[in-house]
Amino acid sequence: MRLNVPIRLRWSDLDAYAHVNNASMLRLLEEARIQAFWETDEAVHGDTAVGASTAVLDGRPGAATLTIIARQEVEYLAQVPYQRLPLDVQLWIGRMGGASLEVCYEVWSPVGVAPAVLYARAATTIVLVDAASGRPRRINDHERASWTPYLDEPVAFTKRAPSRS
Amino acid sequence: MRLNVPIRLRWSDLDAYAHVNNASMLRLLEEARIQAFWETDEAVHGDTAVGASTAVLDGRPGAATLTIIARQEVEYLAQVPYQRLPLDVQLWIGRMGGASLEVCYEVWSPVGVAPAVLYARAATTIVLVDAASGRPRRINDHERASWTPYLDEPVAFTKRAPSRS
Amino acid sequence: MRLNVPIRLRWSDLDAYAHVNNASMLRLLEEARIQAFWETDEAVHGDTAVGASTAVLDGRPGAATLTIIARQEVEYLAQVPYQRLPLDVQLWIGRMGGASLEVCYEVWSPVGVAPAVLYARAATTIVLVDAASGRPRRINDHERASWTPYLDEPVAFTKRAPSRS
Amino acid sequence: MRLNVPIRLRWSDLDAYAHVNNASMLRLLEEARIQAFWETDEAVHGDTAVGASTAVLDGRPGAATLTIIARQEVEYLAQVPYQRLPLDVQLWIGRMGGASLEVCYEVWSPVGVAPAVLYARAATTIVLVDAASGRPRRINDHERASWTPYLDEPVAFTKRAPSRS
Repeated sequence: MRLNVPIRLRWSDLDAYAHVNNASMLRLLEEARIQAFWETDEAVHGDTAVGASTAVLDGRPGAATLTIIARQEVEYLAQVPYQRLPLDVQLWIGRMGGASLEVCYEVWSPVGVAPAVLYARAATTIVLVDAASGRPRRINDHERASWTPYLDEPVAFTKRAPSRS
Repeated sequence: MRLNVPIRLRWSDLDAYAHVNNASMLRLLEEARIQAFWETDEAVHGDTAVGASTAVLDGRPGAATLTIIARQEVEYLAQVPYQRLPLDVQLWIGRMGGASLEVCYEVWSPVGVAPAVLYARAATTIVLVDAASGRPRRINDHERASWTPYLDEPVAFTKRAPSRS
Repeated sequence: MRLNVPIRLRWSDLDAYAHVNNASMLRLLEEARIQAFWETDEAVHGDTAVGASTAVLDGRPGAATLTIIARQEVEYLAQVPYQRLPLDVQLWIGRMGGASLEVCYEVWSPVGVAPAVLYARAATTIVLVDAASGRPRRINDHERASWTPYLDEPVAFTKRAPSRS
Repeated sequence: MRLNVPIRLRWSDLDAYAHVNNASMLRLLEEARIQAFWETDEAVHGDTAVGASTAVLDGRPGAATLTIIARQEVEYLAQVPYQRLPLDVQLWIGRMGGASLEVCYEVWSPVGVAPAVLYARAATTIVLVDAASGRPRRINDHERASWTPYLDEPVAFTKRAPSRS
């Protein structure tokens, strides 16, 4: 199962080539990830953009858990022009380990705009870190239960050359 | 052979966790890449940070060639705190194709600071695109000759899970 | 009359102090301004966030008019924490000249959250520039008619020290 | 007396108009301000860009003093194109109060490039805040002595319309 997170561009996501910059794309993924996984007060009563079922991490300042990025991979498939309707960021979990998970994404043109364009594929490895000790901490049962419905095959990258490792 | 490109952090590269944000890391790589590959007027007489030997792409507005990012992969190995001395971004070419090249990076703590810390490993696939036609164009002989000395083994990623593709 | 433009924060708007950075505030104003004044295809059929009545400038790449910022002034009245509900950016026109206008703003906490907090007051002087000639061009009748209903007293700054000029 | 702080652009400071964005200009000012006022370990032995005499605020994470921005004003006098040589940000103190100071700036084209261009004038009101209490704290004698040589007339803005206040 996938989450569909609508993410609006900002004009400042464009670079001097007048399309969304490669680093800005990571900001969009970050925003989708935060909306999907972080529980906030507003999420309870106000934020209908995203089903709150996966949003079980406390994302507030001073939270007990930090979400640290260990790895990212992005394939940029089409240039993203400025547009006002929110992009359709589809998000699922490609792997769930002891203290880490791999979030997978497909970044699509806005829902309802035809023809649909797949702008990017990406994956982010997140490690849950205990804020007090600075060490990885295990995914707990509540988190695992909340996230398991969104577990699916990892995104299939098509432009990856063989690594030496 | 590697290019050593000194890249200064900005305080705004930090996020609310008070370390360099994952997307900001791509800005640092972008900046290193531009200093390494783009020829500018200033590079001729003023910019001693980087040997100009690889800087053979015209990076000025209206240039005939655009450099489009097709793929990026980053491993974040250690959190990067704010620091004033420039990071030591080491950069080389992992593959050179017909119209594309893979730029590889290791992002190190500032030169002269001990112990040296490897903050990140990364690779970027760049496609040279003809600005007029919007189509990929071949790496020319001058570019190939300028870049060949920096051709080396692709960076070895250590956190990559097997892809389905 | 004021326009109310809902503007969502991004987590990356926070700096290492874990509140919205002073420069990020200008990004929020920019986004509000663009939604208010730029006509796009999507605005016609999809963007209900903002009444389209003021959105009469062509904001697409290659548009005949550039909107250049000549001056900005911001008073930061309260720190802005991360929150998911969109901020309520209230926007009006404080002055309309021959080729320029002053956009005024009050940045408020999200609609419906009590007590309401006024985070910032700001003003931006925009000059309309003809893209071909690079020279200022006059506000035309259609623009003037569209914007006049939103003309009101300029924002009253309270922290301004006397300038020598 | 003015401090001359060399600030390098990043390509990502450009927006889709291919010049330095109005919000990015505040990032450049922020960076100049930090280099001028924040004491870091590196400043002691490595950072020769800026005379360390004003850099008496502890800018490290967990520092006892936060520097909060209360107000900013910028006049954008000329568009800033991408260039590699660092801009010459000239910085002085226009006013020193009990717990606050006004930093003034002129942003110039790189030293040695003729003709010199004045890109922007700006002023930032900074309040020193005690991190523990969250309340303003007085400028201490050491700070006042360090900053007094750089006290001069506030920047003279030329585009300011009369405020109602």
